[in-house]
Amino acid sequence: MAPETRFVDISHEIAGCDILGGALALADAAPLFPPGTIHLAVVDPGVGGKRAPLLVASSGHYYIGPDNGLLSLAAVVPRTVRRLTNERFFRLPLSDTFHGRDLFAPVAGHLADGTAVEEFGSAVEAMVELELPVPVSSDGAVRGQVLTVDRFGNLMTNIPAARLPGPAENCRVGLGQQRIDGISTNYAGAGPGRLVALISSRGTLEIAVAQGSAAACTGAERGTPVIVETV
Amino acid sequence: MAPETRFVDISHEIAGCDILGGALALADAAPLFPPGTIHLAVVDPGVGGKRAPLLVASSGHYYIGPDNGLLSLAAVVPRTVRRLTNERFFRLPLSDTFHGRDLFAPVAGHLADGTAVEEFGSAVEAMVELELPVPVSSDGAVRGQVLTVDRFGNLMTNIPAARLPGPAENCRVGLGQQRIDGISTNYAGAGPGRLVALISSRGTLEIAVAQGSAAACTGAERGTPVIVETV
Amino acid sequence: MAPETRFVDISHEIAGCDILGGALALADAAPLFPPGTIHLAVVDPGVGGKRAPLLVASSGHYYIGPDNGLLSLAAVVPRTVRRLTNERFFRLPLSDTFHGRDLFAPVAGHLADGTAVEEFGSAVEAMVELELPVPVSSDGAVRGQVLTVDRFGNLMTNIPAARLPGPAENCRVGLGQQRIDGISTNYAGAGPGRLVALISSRGTLEIAVAQGSAAACTGAERGTPVIVETV
Repeated sequence: MAPETRFVDISHEIAGCDILGGALALADAAPLFPPGTIHLAVVDPGVGGKRAPLLVASSGHYYIGPDNGLLSLAAVVPRTVRRLTNERFFRLPLSDTFHGRDLFAPVAGHLADGTAVEEFGSAVEAMVELELPVPVSSDGAVRGQVLTVDRFGNLMTNIPAARLPGPAENCRVGLGQQRIDGISTNYAGAGPGRLVALISSRGTLEIAVAQGSAAACTGAERGTPVIVETV
Repeated sequence: MAPETRFVDISHEIAGCDILGGALALADAAPLFPPGTIHLAVVDPGVGGKRAPLLVASSGHYYIGPDNGLLSLAAVVPRTVRRLTNERFFRLPLSDTFHGRDLFAPVAGHLADGTAVEEFGSAVEAMVELELPVPVSSDGAVRGQVLTVDRFGNLMTNIPAARLPGPAENCRVGLGQQRIDGISTNYAGAGPGRLVALISSRGTLEIAVAQGSAAACTGAERGTPVIVETV
Repeated sequence: MAPETRFVDISHEIAGCDILGGALALADAAPLFPPGTIHLAVVDPGVGGKRAPLLVASSGHYYIGPDNGLLSLAAVVPRTVRRLTNERFFRLPLSDTFHGRDLFAPVAGHLADGTAVEEFGSAVEAMVELELPVPVSSDGAVRGQVLTVDRFGNLMTNIPAARLPGPAENCRVGLGQQRIDGISTNYAGAGPGRLVALISSRGTLEIAVAQGSAAACTGAERGTPVIVETV
């Protein structure tokens, strides 16, 4: 449909049905692309059911995917949300199990080829929003959780650097029975095989094992509680 | 050799030696590309042995790969089959273990660069054909099998929708000790974690687990028998 | 930064922290690209610490990555090594955990866009060199080891074909308790499921299992000793 399109594959490794993981990956990557970029994202356990297919415009970017929260972290407000209803831009007959092939990708192709956004469907008021867990501060401590685990087994938490309860050297990070004293500046802050806490490339608290996997060492996964206190 | 070539990677995730899996993936993807496309496919356990290297023309597409059945489902009849014999288009010295690098890819590059198909070798009569297992109908039931398992653990069978023995709501699907009543229209047709039967995006019977893996739940794999009866 | 750049992804499957594995993959692939190619390689367990970021010019190619040996097998001598110090070409603020995003890729982009190599930093004398284990010949035998294991489970050794102690049919390969008589020309040199020794597409001794995984069958991994004797 649009043979001059330049494709960049961000990831084909989001776990099946992991809408939050997909939403976070998209929100990380999208701002690095120039205005006019079309972001096609499909993590779609509700395919063929009642969930709407969407085209969202935000900050000069376009986002195409299912209305299940997947687009909601990247396509920040203000945004215009359209429900994809014009079958002229679908691959027909539309399957009930593979809208990536039959609906979302063809719409992306037509959009890349210059079709006006109005043609794909009417604007709607709202879309499904993901609610990220928010860290809580009390009694001089901050309580958050593991948000994602990367391919190295590093644990990315939802605690921003600015929410730490004291200077890096005075912080003690608790994860299950483990305690980590101090926030290091990089992975080599602890010896090989030892847990290290540091500020991630997202600006949030990360827990890692130098030359190893923190996920494997600790058994932590998304949702595992993390507490930071001062000593 | 042909620097303006546009590459599209269909898959690097076919299991080693899985010729049938590669052939099905190629047959699924090839028709979505425009005429003139060169399809390079390598699943080649017999590399360096007696199996011939082929260039096949079919429906305006070109297929390059080993003569072990890999190309036979995508490159439909009528087709012209050539045996690749002209070493001028190989990377020499030719290894006996990596014809993807030394033979198939260089031939694809020269073909993309405009070399006429006749130059690569002479036409031959026949190529190795894969025989797909065929579902059998008897006594009001249809007996087939699992053909492929996708990355979500969904089980794709060889039973086309048109071969179902009755209306969707009257069908009962049997897989090992499991029974599934009715054919749903999408994955949400059953609750999370429950088996669901539906018509796949290929138009064939599929068995899935909503937000889970049917392969993990049932232990089914390629060749596992599937029976559909009416109740 | 350089939108006309053509990207070729060699691998995203090097194991975390496997500098040698990355260096070997880069050294295998780099010579297949034309002069002027920019090779961006990141296996970087020391990110954010004292290891320098480098731009190396060798044989008309450019190599960008950390100074931990990763570039040393591909960027052969003679070469010019520069330390990347000019923050004008970095993504700021520079994280301490993701120089692939913040330092190496932006430098590659600016280089692709025409920035002169001198602008990125000053030339330095030396870089970290990887030392590959060398096979040893004595008493009519050659002793080497497994260097890499490919995705099929094939074992690639550090023994070049020219170092074999006798004609292929007289060689006996020892790996743990296993003995393999003769060097075959391809994977079909032994029956399915049986160990076979052959000369790899790199020109070195390889140990495989026809239609199976030699790594799984033998438990061998990098460093496992391999001995070749004549019988």
